[in-house]
Amino acid sequence: MNKWVYSFEEGNATMRELLGGKGANLAEMTNLGLPIPHGFTITTAACMDYFKSNEKISDEIMGQIKKALKDLEAKQEKKFGDNENPLLVSVRSGARASMPGMMDTILNLGLNDKSVLGLAKRTNNPRFAYDSYRRFIQMFSDVVMGLEKPKFEKVLSVIKANKGYTYDYELTDKDLIEVINKYKEFYKENLGSEFPQDPEEQLYLAIEAVFKSWNNPRAIYYRRLNDIPGDWGTAVNIQSMVFGNMGETSGTGVAFTRNPATGEKQIYGEYLINAQGEDVVAGIRTPSQISRLEYDMPEVYKQFLSIAETLENHYHDMQDMEFTIENGKLYFLQTRNGKRTAQAALEIACQMVDEGMIDVKEAIMRIDAKSLDQLLHPKFNEEALNNAKLIATGLPASPGAAAGRVYFDAESAKKAHKRKQRVILVRNETSPEDIEGMHIAEGTLTQNGGMTSHAAVVARGMGTACVCGCKAIDLDMEARVMTLGDVVIKEGDFISLDGATGKVYLGDIETKPATLDGNLERIMSWADKYRRMSIRTNADTIADAKKAVEFGAEGIGLCRSEHMFFKNERIIEIRKMILASNKEQRQEALDRLLLFQKEDYKGLYEVMNGLPVTVRLLDPPLHEFLPKDGNIRELAVEMNRDYEEVLVQCDALKEFNPMMGHRGCRLAITFPEIARMQARAIMEAAIEVSVATGVEIEPEIMVPLVDELKELKFVKNIIVEEFEHVFAYYNKRLNYHIGTMIETPRAALLADEIAKEAEFFSFGTNDLTQLTFGLSRDDASKFLDSYYQNDIYENDPFAKLDTEGVGLLIKNAYKLGHKKNKEMHMGICGEHGGEPSSIEFVNAVGLDYVSCSPFRVPIARLAAAQAEIKRLAAKENK
Amino acid sequence: MNKWVYSFEEGNATMRELLGGKGANLAEMTNLGLPIPHGFTITTAACMDYFKSNEKISDEIMGQIKKALKDLEAKQEKKFGDNENPLLVSVRSGARASMPGMMDTILNLGLNDKSVLGLAKRTNNPRFAYDSYRRFIQMFSDVVMGLEKPKFEKVLSVIKANKGYTYDYELTDKDLIEVINKYKEFYKENLGSEFPQDPEEQLYLAIEAVFKSWNNPRAIYYRRLNDIPGDWGTAVNIQSMVFGNMGETSGTGVAFTRNPATGEKQIYGEYLINAQGEDVVAGIRTPSQISRLEYDMPEVYKQFLSIAETLENHYHDMQDMEFTIENGKLYFLQTRNGKRTAQAALEIACQMVDEGMIDVKEAIMRIDAKSLDQLLHPKFNEEALNNAKLIATGLPASPGAAAGRVYFDAESAKKAHKRKQRVILVRNETSPEDIEGMHIAEGTLTQNGGMTSHAAVVARGMGTACVCGCKAIDLDMEARVMTLGDVVIKEGDFISLDGATGKVYLGDIETKPATLDGNLERIMSWADKYRRMSIRTNADTIADAKKAVEFGAEGIGLCRSEHMFFKNERIIEIRKMILASNKEQRQEALDRLLLFQKEDYKGLYEVMNGLPVTVRLLDPPLHEFLPKDGNIRELAVEMNRDYEEVLVQCDALKEFNPMMGHRGCRLAITFPEIARMQARAIMEAAIEVSVATGVEIEPEIMVPLVDELKELKFVKNIIVEEFEHVFAYYNKRLNYHIGTMIETPRAALLADEIAKEAEFFSFGTNDLTQLTFGLSRDDASKFLDSYYQNDIYENDPFAKLDTEGVGLLIKNAYKLGHKKNKEMHMGICGEHGGEPSSIEFVNAVGLDYVSCSPFRVPIARLAAAQAEIKRLAAKENK
Repeated sequence: MNKWVYSFEEGNATMRELLGGKGANLAEMTNLGLPIPHGFTITTAACMDYFKSNEKISDEIMGQIKKALKDLEAKQEKKFGDNENPLLVSVRSGARASMPGMMDTILNLGLNDKSVLGLAKRTNNPRFAYDSYRRFIQMFSDVVMGLEKPKFEKVLSVIKANKGYTYDYELTDKDLIEVINKYKEFYKENLGSEFPQDPEEQLYLAIEAVFKSWNNPRAIYYRRLNDIPGDWGTAVNIQSMVFGNMGETSGTGVAFTRNPATGEKQIYGEYLINAQGEDVVAGIRTPSQISRLEYDMPEVYKQFLSIAETLENHYHDMQDMEFTIENGKLYFLQTRNGKRTAQAALEIACQMVDEGMIDVKEAIMRIDAKSLDQLLHPKFNEEALNNAKLIATGLPASPGAAAGRVYFDAESAKKAHKRKQRVILVRNETSPEDIEGMHIAEGTLTQNGGMTSHAAVVARGMGTACVCGCKAIDLDMEARVMTLGDVVIKEGDFISLDGATGKVYLGDIETKPATLDGNLERIMSWADKYRRMSIRTNADTIADAKKAVEFGAEGIGLCRSEHMFFKNERIIEIRKMILASNKEQRQEALDRLLLFQKEDYKGLYEVMNGLPVTVRLLDPPLHEFLPKDGNIRELAVEMNRDYEEVLVQCDALKEFNPMMGHRGCRLAITFPEIARMQARAIMEAAIEVSVATGVEIEPEIMVPLVDELKELKFVKNIIVEEFEHVFAYYNKRLNYHIGTMIETPRAALLADEIAKEAEFFSFGTNDLTQLTFGLSRDDASKFLDSYYQNDIYENDPFAKLDTEGVGLLIKNAYKLGHKKNKEMHMGICGEHGGEPSSIEFVNAVGLDYVSCSPFRVPIARLAAAQAEIKRLAAKENK
Repeated sequence: MNKWVYSFEEGNATMRELLGGKGANLAEMTNLGLPIPHGFTITTAACMDYFKSNEKISDEIMGQIKKALKDLEAKQEKKFGDNENPLLVSVRSGARASMPGMMDTILNLGLNDKSVLGLAKRTNNPRFAYDSYRRFIQMFSDVVMGLEKPKFEKVLSVIKANKGYTYDYELTDKDLIEVINKYKEFYKENLGSEFPQDPEEQLYLAIEAVFKSWNNPRAIYYRRLNDIPGDWGTAVNIQSMVFGNMGETSGTGVAFTRNPATGEKQIYGEYLINAQGEDVVAGIRTPSQISRLEYDMPEVYKQFLSIAETLENHYHDMQDMEFTIENGKLYFLQTRNGKRTAQAALEIACQMVDEGMIDVKEAIMRIDAKSLDQLLHPKFNEEALNNAKLIATGLPASPGAAAGRVYFDAESAKKAHKRKQRVILVRNETSPEDIEGMHIAEGTLTQNGGMTSHAAVVARGMGTACVCGCKAIDLDMEARVMTLGDVVIKEGDFISLDGATGKVYLGDIETKPATLDGNLERIMSWADKYRRMSIRTNADTIADAKKAVEFGAEGIGLCRSEHMFFKNERIIEIRKMILASNKEQRQEALDRLLLFQKEDYKGLYEVMNGLPVTVRLLDPPLHEFLPKDGNIRELAVEMNRDYEEVLVQCDALKEFNPMMGHRGCRLAITFPEIARMQARAIMEAAIEVSVATGVEIEPEIMVPLVDELKELKFVKNIIVEEFEHVFAYYNKRLNYHIGTMIETPRAALLADEIAKEAEFFSFGTNDLTQLTFGLSRDDASKFLDSYYQNDIYENDPFAKLDTEGVGLLIKNAYKLGHKKNKEMHMGICGEHGGEPSSIEFVNAVGLDYVSCSPFRVPIARLAAAQAEIKRLAAKENK
């Protein structure tokens, strides 16, 4: 017989795979002797068993749950479903990785029409008892039966309005009985049956609802965003209730051992008197700072601080805790390693190294490399900020500067984003349904809720700016307008947010890029010691190259030479080159392009100051350089050519599947003169800069879209011939390296062949992914959503490397390439080069470098260090 | 020291790799004691050495050539370059595989201003001597120096016109001296140097020219057409000259031991009195039938017949021979296995089996499977033919019926073909420059030349119709008009040719498909005994399915269900389905489509009568079903919808790279209702036909473009669910099989995973090739020519399977699939399924079947037998 249920006494912190994070930590805290209400955990394995058994909880599992419930009754000296002294429980999800707000919770379970009387009598607090029952009906109906909470809120508001009340706490016990009756009526009307009175039935349905919540769309979306596999499942924690809603000596709160926004070492959190947990998280009432507790309940506060310190020392990490005070007695309901902004993560890691709590290696591993992205986001241009109109201030919930057009719901925000608009999402408060909207938004602004409200937690996780609790907002959803004092902002107008200060400005304030200093610089220097791979950048402009070097790039891994062709005076020459009627005309245009290209390369060589620069030969199909249909007439005039003729030529260049068309080295084979021009420009630039600066330069030139050794050989011959001409002309030789992209499956399969002529391989994982899947990146959006919803893909393979399919090709090519040439230098360029899990994969394969966009260089440096630390640890454990 | 040169006495027929076909056979004949002029062969290895040494003949090779020349002088008792008794030689190419007319030949080499006098004196035939020198200057200048022959012909015509001559033979020896002097002047004017007088220089340049001819564009094109590798090289044969141009007791000819057009057992050929070899092949003078030789020179004819019989018995195959008669003495200059039409190949193979000359296995191997295509080409509809206007009759040079628009040169023909026109190429005579034009033409018609003229040989090889020597043609290239009697045909007008009768008709005569009978049926029945793989067909219509069954298909391997959607009343429903604004509208359209689909499948099941039918679910991107831009307004009206709205919807369906877009199983995942409809239609049709006919049917359903096990699982679940509904409704179950296309590299790489849910794999080699190479079939034509010219590709990978890259994926998937499921049934569909070399490859891999278009079924049956015979032979030899 499998063990599906563990009492808190039976578990510990190492069992999170089985018990989920919440369950494992409740067990750990129980065994540390902390004040934890008794309870037990149904394992993640039970959840997966539920899905495998066609969504049925097996008799074996139900048996163990009932047994655990009996034990719990004994410990609490209460009886589940008893009319005099009922045991009430909370039912909460708890996955292996924390997924805050993603899944479902039910409180006060076990109440019914009879036991609520017993509870009222026993606690001598009828108002509390009826409030609890009211909450339970509302939560159970929402979470288990799908009858949404706002509908109950409407029932409640009617009653409040009738009585002339503003706040919930004005409701008397009599009023609450009325509310309960109305709720039950409403339940029956909508669901066609009575609200379930049997606590065992309540429990079964609640557990099932938590299991099911693992596969709700929010949870699937969150998993994809956070790389959590779909087959982990969630555990369910059944815990004896303690009540923060018993009156003025009761309350509930959440707190962090250090500041999760800045990392400052100071207890940080909020609590509400006379409330249950969901009131804090939902952000409906604005709670008090945790420091106020010292005045409200000094003894409890002292005990709280001491337990918080115990927990941080025990876990060696910043803790995020939930607690409840029932009639002056403190209980802990949860602890976990706290989510934090990237800024806080760096600060806490550095502090803890300085405090001797963790070592440098541990500090490196502590930072979520992806999250550094937040710090590398732009900040407001200070001058622009000085002239900006401040229109409101809220809570600084997630740092970063953001400017965009306001939209008042997630749907409109997403549509605007698809129209390529920058978006600020403005809501009264956010709920899990808003996650996708928040994800595509530059920033989120809410009227209600504190620093630990849903909006704040989620925005920090995403690294987007967020200002919360901005009371000044008056949102008119009908008119699609928000008013802040005398400022009226229509949907679609620009505002700017500073998530680090909580300030809201009118208009579209210019932003400026971030720099690398302080803690980030310190962590980077640690990471550099541990990583094995070098980090290059994809840069085509001097500005990009400068930024990348500032961020620690050790070379340019991919200079897309065609990007240089789009500047104004160049595009006309490239068009003339493409549309030339004969070789002579083409050569004329190429001669002029040569001068431009040479200048471009000289600029890059100067900035890179001897670091490697890998230039890829012209790659895109030529029609990409042509004007859209409407402007061909203009072009014809400019070229002094017949319009019809140019039109026919442009049409002839169109392709059915341009991704697989006349591009890459195919261009160099049909128009060798273009490759000659580029080769000459590269080498002339290198020699001239080398002579002028005295810095040794070794140009690297990369041939794209190679399928076949003979292609590479052909293009290489052209390059070498041109190089020799240049050497002869300047009477000077430079070392150089000629390599190839591996970006078609065929090249990867036959890498040993191709290695005969290549000095290096650069895996073009964008194209390689497209071809391996037969999936066009530009068209995939039409169906990827269905794939996520149906649990077919967990991730976008263009964001996160497909290690099974594409990865197999990379591994294979690595082996074959090395078999032929032990010295072969290999790396990846493309989106995956800056994505931590992909970096971990290619580090394990053995590649020598990754190349990514300048802003991702710090992420790559850290991820490469983490990857190598993991690899060595795994090797040791073998 | 390598041996680079072999005298004819040193070689034999098995040495064709080294000596080329011509050299090996000359050696064999020499050793058989036949009358062969002495000579020697420079090996193919020497040719490849020449290319490797930057186009230089090494000293070692030249040394061996000079030594062989000395031996030849001794045998002939003549001296190379001697003024009294000069040795003259022919220099001819000879590759391992016969490439008629593809490469170069020089006759009479060794003549110069002085030796021509000696030759005149010694032969006492000055006219012959000067004629030989004239020919030599002309040929050498053309072949070696690139000064084209027609330019010399012009010089000649001027002299002939001045003298009032019509024919060459009217020229006297004096006249010929004048011609020679003019030729030499013309040579000097154009090339800036004197015509080379040193015979050793002549020889070196001639050998070099033959080597170089291996890589001329014609040869490269021919090799690609005939799957001949580029690294074989050509041998060079140096042979002592014998002269057919010594007068009326001299002559030259070519002959076949059996009729190469029909296979009839009867000596067949042509000769010209007083001529050299090139006169026959070039087709300028119309030669006499070989049977006339019996009257002209009875003794020679008797000897000729006896040698021809000896050769056929020796080689066990029909021989194609060249001979020369010098002053009444017969010499053989070449023998080889004769090229023949497919019809002749079948006839000869059957005859030889009946004669006991070869066994059945050998007969199977004798037929070029690709060539069967000719027999399976349409013939004229007899009724239409009866009403057609016969405008001329020529020689029936290559069988088959062809109708198309006339074009008068290869360039115009190719352009018309690109405009999707059917083309008939009409020429005075064809030359190797016309090959590409002939290849794309339905048929070729020439004014001059006999059954062995260039046009005839090439057309037979290609299996296209050809009518030669149609004297009635008067071609005005200036006016672009041809006149046949009183009929004037402009370029672009329609004519029709019957290559089996030599008849030329006015207009575009309807053709009808061929049938399988006689020798073809006999060979097919032999092939069926030897093949291991089964042969299925790609058929979407009842007509196709019927044809395929008639041709021996053992099932449908690929029914592209979407092809059924294009018929008139269906396309509107599919458009409604695609553009539906909601699920209800979509379902309505689907309900109507269901009825159509069901009828379609019932038709196929009835025709196939229990043979397997594999239906592929809807595959192409939906926008393929939408009307082109102009007709959207019409569609909107028809659908009673707002035009702008429909336009936006149509636009939204456009894709950047449709090949890698929203298609294949991705459609079934986003619109499961379509897959449901198809599954239901398939199973309902199968049950109804099964019940009605009593024939057991096991539907096979194939999921396209699968990348990932979960995709297949998702779609399979839908199919199985629908099948179960149908079974319940009809209260009857059928066995069925659900499989998948393997057409993305990812599917091939992870075939073991995918095999978990698939009962069969069908390799979609069209898509697999596109994705493995990153090469769009529709766009590749833009650069493939450059690839051939630069010797990067030898074949179009869409015509002939890339066994290195794509083949590796197939091998891999075969192994992985079988590892998971030993019973897994695997085949290929797509173009390669009917291509013999691809069939050989997949047979060796171990696949169970190929599926090809109906007209290729007989080719596939034969190729599969040949493949298995080869595989077993190779296994035995191991």
